[in-house]
Amino acid sequence: MMHSKRRDQLRQRIKKAGLNGFMTTSANDVFYLTGFHSEGCFLLITLKKDLLFVNGLLETQAREGTKHDASLKVTCPQPFLKGMSENITPLHLEKIGYDSEVITLSLAKNLSSIKKIKWIPSEGLVRELRVIKSPEEIYLIRQACRITAKAYTSTIKKIKSGMTEEELMFSLENSFRNLGSARISFPSIVAFNSNSAFPHYVSGKIKLKSGSAVLIDAGSALGHYASDFTRTIAFGKPSKEFQKIHSIVKEAQAAGIAMIKPGVTAEAVDDVCRGIIEKYGYKKYFTHGTGHGLGLDIHENPRLMVGSKEKLVAGMVVTVEPGIYLPGKFGVRIEDTILVTKNGYEILTK
Amino acid sequence: MMHSKRRDQLRQRIKKAGLNGFMTTSANDVFYLTGFHSEGCFLLITLKKDLLFVNGLLETQAREGTKHDASLKVTCPQPFLKGMSENITPLHLEKIGYDSEVITLSLAKNLSSIKKIKWIPSEGLVRELRVIKSPEEIYLIRQACRITAKAYTSTIKKIKSGMTEEELMFSLENSFRNLGSARISFPSIVAFNSNSAFPHYVSGKIKLKSGSAVLIDAGSALGHYASDFTRTIAFGKPSKEFQKIHSIVKEAQAAGIAMIKPGVTAEAVDDVCRGIIEKYGYKKYFTHGTGHGLGLDIHENPRLMVGSKEKLVAGMVVTVEPGIYLPGKFGVRIEDTILVTKNGYEILTK
Repeated sequence: MMHSKRRDQLRQRIKKAGLNGFMTTSANDVFYLTGFHSEGCFLLITLKKDLLFVNGLLETQAREGTKHDASLKVTCPQPFLKGMSENITPLHLEKIGYDSEVITLSLAKNLSSIKKIKWIPSEGLVRELRVIKSPEEIYLIRQACRITAKAYTSTIKKIKSGMTEEELMFSLENSFRNLGSARISFPSIVAFNSNSAFPHYVSGKIKLKSGSAVLIDAGSALGHYASDFTRTIAFGKPSKEFQKIHSIVKEAQAAGIAMIKPGVTAEAVDDVCRGIIEKYGYKKYFTHGTGHGLGLDIHENPRLMVGSKEKLVAGMVVTVEPGIYLPGKFGVRIEDTILVTKNGYEILTK
Repeated sequence: MMHSKRRDQLRQRIKKAGLNGFMTTSANDVFYLTGFHSEGCFLLITLKKDLLFVNGLLETQAREGTKHDASLKVTCPQPFLKGMSENITPLHLEKIGYDSEVITLSLAKNLSSIKKIKWIPSEGLVRELRVIKSPEEIYLIRQACRITAKAYTSTIKKIKSGMTEEELMFSLENSFRNLGSARISFPSIVAFNSNSAFPHYVSGKIKLKSGSAVLIDAGSALGHYASDFTRTIAFGKPSKEFQKIHSIVKEAQAAGIAMIKPGVTAEAVDDVCRGIIEKYGYKKYFTHGTGHGLGLDIHENPRLMVGSKEKLVAGMVVTVEPGIYLPGKFGVRIEDTILVTKNGYEILTK
């Protein structure tokens, strides 16, 4: 079974790291390792056992959702922390790893009350497993990417003067739904005019006028897997400046994508995109990294940015999304989701 | 100005707690205190200064969004942590509070590298301010609640045999949009039949049949403020058992709501709901707390649950949402969002 295999892979990594177990509370980690998706679960993988602790609210759902997984034991301790502690203590685990980028200070304090256990920050353990996608995962991401690109193409045909950012956003998201994706990967961004110069804009009631820049950054999700896609167009006749900036970003993005293959560092892709934008004199207007990994989370490793020495490996899925933002005027970002293949890359958002 | 007033209130609390400042990274705390809403900001309130640290991605947007707020200084340090440290060190702050339920272990470690500062877990500082809603906040929550209740009423009229859970969910969310709410407070739940027995179900492609239980738990959002509302109905002729359970939950919810007024403890409301469900012999099927505060976050203080000694105060907004879940059969939950008023309560979701 897929999930118990993943737990076995994790077990090997736990052993190799000199730990007796790993605990995660991340809903996406829990889903990756058990197939059950919910906030509020504590999954403990030891060298011998797989224990999923859930509260009363989730009990029947967790049992139902994992009933074919014989090696996973669902427990509903009451009161939760004390009961969990009573389950863990007899296992004589000395060192348990956890992800210090997920665990809050308050939770760490609660966990430290469990006797005779040393909690070891071990970020990479599940994260490094999740970064290389399996064929099943790639299938879902590819489908989500296709839905996103297809929905964009059909939505953009319906764009018209007087329409608000929110209306265009609703139209795109309805198209995701009609194509089979019930959920979005992150809050969609539709930005008109100078709003497009804000990389993380929240869409509002601004109306579309001829000559406006239109930036759309959105992604449908499928089976909890994300897609990520951005296009920027001019509605009506584009200004000379818009055309120029658009062609620079397009050139930068194409050059970044062309770099992608196993063995290349994540920062090298960023460097190529940034270099082209710098060549045209717009370096200071490219205010973010070139891209990021994605999968169950919309932002995963590797980060395609300055200083990221991580090497690309076949099976990684990353975005390439350079942008130039001219405050008060407009911004242009172009983004695709890319699969790293054995020999190079495949653009998934097409 | 509203936001600077709130920062002044926080300043008084900082002083009273013997601290020199408070730092928050919560997007909703930052919004509450500055009017600017984004993940990835660090807001530091000291006894003398208000500093908002943002990365390059957010700089123009943060400056634009807070330009009328003279006492708030937006800074874009590069590299981020080192630059932030260089801004903070000269202020000679010895003790800065933060919320240990928000700060991750990894972030705490990074912050601890800033010299000569002791970081003090101080959960309540902003949280206790946010728990009592101002008239402006109540206005937004009331509007969101009205949209939610109105959308439910119109959507439920369109329910028909063969429709999937997702289709009903889309229909409800479209109705939120048509009524003026562009965003949802949390992922909507639409559950048919035995799925309604899972309190945190994720809607799927199950089709509606006559005699089905239909549980709808959803909330539109307005200006970042949440609403929360649940109804459970039978589609077609309800079974005797459904009618019985529904009437018990309704009785429990009405009794819980009737308890609400300033001075009553949060656990007393839970106790009354739970007592009625126990009286009918269904105690073990009510697997969660009776309710929770809400506002910018969908789950805030106070928690209406066993052991919650917090007293209700006028201006709090809470849910009352008892439920009975019969695994394999159906679940019934009834929930309203309630404002605690000077003399009692007001049901907002109507």
